[in-house]
Amino acid sequence: MKIVCKKSNLLNGVQNVSKAVPVRTTMSILECILVDASQGEIKLTANDMEIGIETIIDGTIEQPGKIALEAKIFIEIVKKLPDNDITIETDEKNMTYIKCENSNFNLVGKSGDDYTYLPKIEKIDSIVLSQFTLKEIIRQTIFSIGAAEGSNKLMAGELFEIKDDVLKVVALDGHRIAVRKVKMKNAYGEKKVIVPGKALNEISKILPGDTDKDVEVFFTDKHIVFEFNTTTVVARLLEGEYFNINQMLSSDYETKMKINKNSLFSCIDRATLLASEGNSKPVIMQIEEGKMLMNMNSAIGSMSETIDIEKTGKDLVIGFNPKFLMDALKAIDDEIIDVYLVNSKAPCYIKNADETYNYMVLPVNFTTVS
Amino acid sequence: MKIVCKKSNLLNGVQNVSKAVPVRTTMSILECILVDASQGEIKLTANDMEIGIETIIDGTIEQPGKIALEAKIFIEIVKKLPDNDITIETDEKNMTYIKCENSNFNLVGKSGDDYTYLPKIEKIDSIVLSQFTLKEIIRQTIFSIGAAEGSNKLMAGELFEIKDDVLKVVALDGHRIAVRKVKMKNAYGEKKVIVPGKALNEISKILPGDTDKDVEVFFTDKHIVFEFNTTTVVARLLEGEYFNINQMLSSDYETKMKINKNSLFSCIDRATLLASEGNSKPVIMQIEEGKMLMNMNSAIGSMSETIDIEKTGKDLVIGFNPKFLMDALKAIDDEIIDVYLVNSKAPCYIKNADETYNYMVLPVNFTTVS
Repeated sequence: MKIVCKKSNLLNGVQNVSKAVPVRTTMSILECILVDASQGEIKLTANDMEIGIETIIDGTIEQPGKIALEAKIFIEIVKKLPDNDITIETDEKNMTYIKCENSNFNLVGKSGDDYTYLPKIEKIDSIVLSQFTLKEIIRQTIFSIGAAEGSNKLMAGELFEIKDDVLKVVALDGHRIAVRKVKMKNAYGEKKVIVPGKALNEISKILPGDTDKDVEVFFTDKHIVFEFNTTTVVARLLEGEYFNINQMLSSDYETKMKINKNSLFSCIDRATLLASEGNSKPVIMQIEEGKMLMNMNSAIGSMSETIDIEKTGKDLVIGFNPKFLMDALKAIDDEIIDVYLVNSKAPCYIKNADETYNYMVLPVNFTTVS
Repeated sequence: MKIVCKKSNLLNGVQNVSKAVPVRTTMSILECILVDASQGEIKLTANDMEIGIETIIDGTIEQPGKIALEAKIFIEIVKKLPDNDITIETDEKNMTYIKCENSNFNLVGKSGDDYTYLPKIEKIDSIVLSQFTLKEIIRQTIFSIGAAEGSNKLMAGELFEIKDDVLKVVALDGHRIAVRKVKMKNAYGEKKVIVPGKALNEISKILPGDTDKDVEVFFTDKHIVFEFNTTTVVARLLEGEYFNINQMLSSDYETKMKINKNSLFSCIDRATLLASEGNSKPVIMQIEEGKMLMNMNSAIGSMSETIDIEKTGKDLVIGFNPKFLMDALKAIDDEIIDVYLVNSKAPCYIKNADETYNYMVLPVNFTTVS
């Protein structure tokens, strides 16, 4: 194989696919990036068997062929080479020569034939979203998924539910739920899949997020495929029946608080200073006519702060894990938000009128301090 | 005590003095910052017994007094408070109330009387430098000092030598020497002190580095004192006779190489990719008429690169620890540098004509690869 391509193209390509290189694996070939110039285009591939990424880069093929190169050192070399044309050439023993200006690197590669390709997917059933929309909807929900090694594996994924022209994304762990809805340009048949959080995390890292460029998302029984620009990401779906969240999301409330989002966020942020690491002390909100008093008490000291609010309904004292509230607030763009509450034991909902977002957080017990 | 000051002033002050708060200590009072408003000004102090920092901040004293506050939480609170006036008030039991807008923090402080003050220094003997000059000369030498827990404690410090209007700073470990000279505006009597590297590191972090503002440096038998803006840093000197570097710095050479500094730096930087961590493989330079060929060989692969040079004297093959060369090159501003060599076992010198800088690096043994 002999190919020539611009450093910037190659770097962008290897960095994209590197997100699918497993950190630890017993199959050493998976630690490699496959450079495949055997089919008339230069294609880079990485694959950890749960998520696979392919990207096609511009360049000249002087001699077709393919080679698998250890990802870590390959990326570092490309990164540090001068900003000019890079030539990659291999011999029949998989010795690889990487040249740029006066620099020459020799690496021992592995045969491309040993590489595990991405599964062939029949691309029939698809939806189209802007890159920006997909990136945003992931950011606005992903923090709510459960740990991958948790008791319930489905919590480590997000529900993608399509109905007509609406995409609904749901993430939940044992303590909170995040729901986001977006309108798409076209309507589609009903679909419901659970996408692993890890794959979504990696996609959102490499997705440029342009508002005027699209992602095409294909669905099969076992896989979801994201295609954007010259990159393809294939992820294995989680199998099972997702939680019925409709019965967890009530719209009854006894207390409604309208509050400035940034004021609330900064106030919780300050309160958490007093919670030493690993010790998740609750913040206590005392909701009254026209104001909310926040309290935090710990061995280090105490903190109190008042924020002006608009309240309807009953007064209420309720405690929360500060992190869960802050995560939800970070995902909301509105300046003024509505918080719906029932009593000190019932979930709270932060949502807007048309429910394009709905964040449910369970309260925590607390002992009232005088 | 009751004081009021702007958040920005207080934050700047606590961040400055925090550099002298010990990370680990058996004297818990030293983990505090002393806020002293008993003498008509608001003075913040931290002191780990080797280095002490004091800074005076603007503000209003409504009731004189002093308090010692646990540094870590105090800084975090100041950082996260709104950008407005902060009131700090204490009661007779050292309970401390920190208020800003609608935020109130209560902390348990410690009596300021228990705090260990900085030593009183007679400020007689001094020199004056611009803040920029001091910050630069530290940056350009500090990387060459030895480890604090090394066999020779004097290597953990830098020699500050004053003679007439020249300040010479020397740092060395067992493998290299860094020498820098600067001209001062005034001439002074001869002085020679060894300043702990730790103190210099901390000073260079808090020194704003303005070219048009000065630092006054005072000397006593046991201490060195740096005064700039409203901040005072006191450091205990290292005691002993510093190394006689003149006998280590030869000006004889057999080979002189004129080379572009950035090309050399990037080339070594690329070569180090092949040295796996912890394994300091040498870079090998083959110096010939008109060009220098650099080689690196390791288990991962090999690298070679040619750089155009101007050579005078003999051809030479010599190996170096790449880190030592790169450290020296980073400290040099010149675009074209002169490298002086004798043979493959003798030290190399990177220095300019008037020797305002001279970096000596010892070569390492290597086995030539065909």
